Amino acid sequence: MAILPQIRSPRDLDHLSESQLVALAQEIREFLVENVARTGGHLGPNLGVVELTIAMHRVFDSPNDPMIFDTGHQSYVHKMLTGRQDFSDLRTRDGLAGYPQRSESIHDVVESSHASSSLSWADGISRALSRTGRRDRHVIAMVGDGALTGGMTWEALNNISDDNDRNLVIIVNDNGRSYAPTIGGMARYLNRVRTADTYRELRHRSDTMSRRLGPAARALYRGLRGGMHGFLSRFTNNEALYSNLDIKYLGPVDGHDLPVMIETLRLAKDYGAPVIVHAITEKGRGYEPARNDEADQFHAVGRIDPITGEAIGGGGGNSWTDVFAQELPEIAAERTDVIAITAAMLRPTGLQLFAEKYPDRVLDVGIAEQHAVTSAAGLAFGGLHPVVALYATFINRAFDQVLMDVALHRAGVTFVLDRAGVTGPDGPSHHGIWDLAMLQIVPGIRIAVPRDAPRVREELREALDVSDGPTVIRFPKGNVGEDLPAIERLEDGVDVLARGETHDVLVIGIGPMAHIAVDVATRLEAQGIGATVVDPRWVVPVQQSLVDLAAQHRLVITIEDGIRVGGIGTRIRQVFREAGVDTAVDELGVPDEFIAHASREQILEDAGLTAAKIAQDVVAQVLGTRIPMARQSRDTSTLWITDDANDNARDDA
Amino acid sequence: MAILPQIRSPRDLDHLSESQLVALAQEIREFLVENVARTGGHLGPNLGVVELTIAMHRVFDSPNDPMIFDTGHQSYVHKMLTGRQDFSDLRTRDGLAGYPQRSESIHDVVESSHASSSLSWADGISRALSRTGRRDRHVIAMVGDGALTGGMTWEALNNISDDNDRNLVIIVNDNGRSYAPTIGGMARYLNRVRTADTYRELRHRSDTMSRRLGPAARALYRGLRGGMHGFLSRFTNNEALYSNLDIKYLGPVDGHDLPVMIETLRLAKDYGAPVIVHAITEKGRGYEPARNDEADQFHAVGRIDPITGEAIGGGGGNSWTDVFAQELPEIAAERTDVIAITAAMLRPTGLQLFAEKYPDRVLDVGIAEQHAVTSAAGLAFGGLHPVVALYATFINRAFDQVLMDVALHRAGVTFVLDRAGVTGPDGPSHHGIWDLAMLQIVPGIRIAVPRDAPRVREELREALDVSDGPTVIRFPKGNVGEDLPAIERLEDGVDVLARGETHDVLVIGIGPMAHIAVDVATRLEAQGIGATVVDPRWVVPVQQSLVDLAAQHRLVITIEDGIRVGGIGTRIRQVFREAGVDTAVDELGVPDEFIAHASREQILEDAGLTAAKIAQDVVAQVLGTRIPMARQSRDTSTLWITDDANDNARDDA
Repeated sequence: MAILPQIRSPRDLDHLSESQLVALAQEIREFLVENVARTGGHLGPNLGVVELTIAMHRVFDSPNDPMIFDTGHQSYVHKMLTGRQDFSDLRTRDGLAGYPQRSESIHDVVESSHASSSLSWADGISRALSRTGRRDRHVIAMVGDGALTGGMTWEALNNISDDNDRNLVIIVNDNGRSYAPTIGGMARYLNRVRTADTYRELRHRSDTMSRRLGPAARALYRGLRGGMHGFLSRFTNNEALYSNLDIKYLGPVDGHDLPVMIETLRLAKDYGAPVIVHAITEKGRGYEPARNDEADQFHAVGRIDPITGEAIGGGGGNSWTDVFAQELPEIAAERTDVIAITAAMLRPTGLQLFAEKYPDRVLDVGIAEQHAVTSAAGLAFGGLHPVVALYATFINRAFDQVLMDVALHRAGVTFVLDRAGVTGPDGPSHHGIWDLAMLQIVPGIRIAVPRDAPRVREELREALDVSDGPTVIRFPKGNVGEDLPAIERLEDGVDVLARGETHDVLVIGIGPMAHIAVDVATRLEAQGIGATVVDPRWVVPVQQSLVDLAAQHRLVITIEDGIRVGGIGTRIRQVFREAGVDTAVDELGVPDEFIAHASREQILEDAGLTAAKIAQDVVAQVLGTRIPMARQSRDTSTLWITDDANDNARDDA
Repeated sequence: MAILPQIRSPRDLDHLSESQLVALAQEIREFLVENVARTGGHLGPNLGVVELTIAMHRVFDSPNDPMIFDTGHQSYVHKMLTGRQDFSDLRTRDGLAGYPQRSESIHDVVESSHASSSLSWADGISRALSRTGRRDRHVIAMVGDGALTGGMTWEALNNISDDNDRNLVIIVNDNGRSYAPTIGGMARYLNRVRTADTYRELRHRSDTMSRRLGPAARALYRGLRGGMHGFLSRFTNNEALYSNLDIKYLGPVDGHDLPVMIETLRLAKDYGAPVIVHAITEKGRGYEPARNDEADQFHAVGRIDPITGEAIGGGGGNSWTDVFAQELPEIAAERTDVIAITAAMLRPTGLQLFAEKYPDRVLDVGIAEQHAVTSAAGLAFGGLHPVVALYATFINRAFDQVLMDVALHRAGVTFVLDRAGVTGPDGPSHHGIWDLAMLQIVPGIRIAVPRDAPRVREELREALDVSDGPTVIRFPKGNVGEDLPAIERLEDGVDVLARGETHDVLVIGIGPMAHIAVDVATRLEAQGIGATVVDPRWVVPVQQSLVDLAAQHRLVITIEDGIRVGGIGTRIRQVFREAGVDTAVDELGVPDEFIAHASREQILEDAGLTAAKIAQDVVAQVLGTRIPMARQSRDTSTLWITDDANDNARDDA
């Protein structure tokens, strides 16, 4: 009989024998492949932590012992063991989230999916527990070796080692990679440990033991326990991970050897002070297509054939990333000063082709956005022009560096922010909705938001031509869609996309929202309201022609897919008012809240960012006479809105 | 004859003998004490790096060999050796900056004064130099042990160790402290090194040598050179700083033994790959009052008596910091859940008294703002209410953590941001002008800006009563000034500070700008323009009574001492418009640019943030009929502005 369906809560693991636990691991892997193949999701990472997670829940007692998953995309097994086995709507609205989520379960603690934060969380929680009379409880943090390249983990470990009076177990899930292979001196160190005699010896011993599961095994593991202590003293005395920090260290152990993992965690549990357990695992473990995938071991997949691992449907079409990926190497062929930087995400940010053509001109700095940005300022000082390619949500981690290192020093650095705006299935921490509001307060920054593929290419080139300060080009996830040609490019580079019969409403569509802006205009025209649509292309600084146009209209609508508070719209209005133009401005954007996982379309609709809703609101303003709408010809004459137009609007409402 | 005045550029050091260099060090110390006593400045740190800096400039060739000073407040000696010996107007407008500044000298490279960034800069610059055919040049970064607690240095070292094909010398200026003693496992490790036999031996040998300066010394140092190599291999093999990262390591050496420092840097120069030089120094070296100052070794002083080190003038009066410092322990006496966190700045952020009363309830996490914020979220999860006390400029380093760890998880964490707004003498990187714009885009955050001492106390208490999300209270540097009582507190907590005869202009004074707002109102009344002045106290979320008031006025002026772009004013206007209130809004604030060192008053005046200028602009709007001003009694009747009022305004213009 299948074991997995019987596991409703972690304590159901207590009654299982070791062989049952091993069988459970197999069932979980089958479940993962079958389910994630249907919905897409983070397959490789979860296949790598099956035994780790079972062992965690067997040895510790969630939620009394809070469990923290760094980044969180490896929490599927945890979900399955804590009563969540309906994966049918994974990462879709009202379905299971792709990351831990407090609203789903009391067993979920940390739902931020930004790497390297788990040890700081664990530091805080474990201090609080021991200071409030709950010294018997443990905090467990599972962190990947990739996340250890992030400076926050160093800050946390430096503090964790300062207070031994608490129970804190850090499981380093070391598979030699984050999304991409882990970089730097730390990775080389881990690699030495992985390949050291001690670890090979241990694997041999535990392999042997695995073959003798049963009552006899227990005795053997007790023997091994002595061995662990041996490792412990050995590693803490010389070359353990972060040895200078004095944190106790257990390992390395085979993270797929369930009995050994359980035994090791029991040791760690009894330790009575912070301890690192170094587990060696394999991403994609047990699923051949993932193991054979050299690119990223099926880190995150769309829908796939569970047998072959081949992608089903989806794909097709050119993504925004693809356009950038193809253009950058072409520019680099002409300009030897162009160099690319990624923070452990070469492929997802579109730098793979560039890296193939110019392997010496791409730097992977690890999951270290702060360093990515500041070292880029250094590269610029040295005469190069760095292109820092990040997800928009991750530039949030380097605001100070953009401000103080790049902008203050007028360094010619170009930031290419992918997955900007509303992303969708990855939930609140992956939306790139803060970048525009956050970056526009950086003095001297210049920000371009392309609306289609040709604009990605040309704005990228324009950005790379700026050598005296930071430039940003940001675009969304997914398919780039149809080109949207301008009917006219104004002198300052603003593109006019549509012109109505009259000058009533000016619709400023920022980047991809220009498509919606055109649709709005069409709907307004149908109601007798004349609309001009522009794409500013460069949204910071605000272009003069927007001011001139605003002065000729009765209402301005700005549409951005970033957060509305403090957004680009507010800056545009400020410039209008400074210039003496008091045309009413409605700044449309994403609401000031955290947005759960759903499709981009669903989220935009909820936010009222659809052409139908926007047009309807403009019409309502007109009908409500809040905005005295003018029928204004393109030259000078001013006519107030006719009853006709009002009637049209009403008919349609 | 004095040597210092003859040093116009670093190459003038080449002709000096070792004894002359030692004499120069003495002259520099005397110069520092004499000059900084007159102006105030970072005395202790600079006294600690006299020999380090002389040795750097003797061995390396700035600006061909770029020199980077982490944090930069220890660059005074560097300034003196690079042609800048007029310290008479240090840190005042048009005088020498307190940090490196590119506009001052070609020898200054990095002017950001935020700690822990230097190694990332050095990584970038050295990569660029070796990639562009300048492999013979060296990059030198001087970084304090305190700055090593910041995660960026870990990120940088992890990357530096990845590429040995460049010349990069990292001088760790290890004085056991940043502002405060350095914390954590790393500090304990450094302390072990400092007290190890090897270092004591070295000091003994170099002490002996110092007594025999002259031709004979040279031979001795050559001998020592062998010894250095001995250290090198010894430390790289086992317990060197960041040993796991494989970075070559020289030291520890006595950072005040000039000949030894020069010799060590020569070794490092010849190394041909990144190398760490670990120099042990003493903050305040050579100046007894600083050495005897247990608090912070005269880290930064105001004007002092150069002989006794006692403060001259200044001080007096209660600072904003003092008010917070006194209130927090009182709250903590009532609430055992309150715990305080500082990032290596216990005293400057006002936590000293709290620490004395509750030593177990304060955490110094090192210069690690990211960890400070996320570990606070963990503490809140564990049932405590953390108060994270930072300078406003440093919260910029933890935006992602405030957003993703605190706000997304609705953690009850209170941020107390000191030195908010325009600070003054420390220049562009110390102004706290980005906090409001940056933090207001964090969903669910609540931000209070007190205008006077009673408001600091009450808003702090209100903030600590919020347990379901982040709260911020931010105040400026300096004297808190007079209390500014309200004439009425509205239901939602908004304070009315003044009411004019008529409802013409609503002036919203944010925090300390409320004083200016009241002054503006007085001036407007004198011109026959009726002004209402309010302090919202809590600026995020926007309070309803502001909307109601705005609807009753013809013009709204918001005044904040944060950056105007994306500022609180823009949010207030958005709320007005959403509520159907279209009263014109002028959002006044700090311009969107980096602001050089000057006094707060000078900077506010340049920004037009004085009562005279604001009142003048309002009057001009009225006269210009841009705003049709109403003489509106407090009930209902609407009268357009009279000629009388216009005349008054004109008479005064």
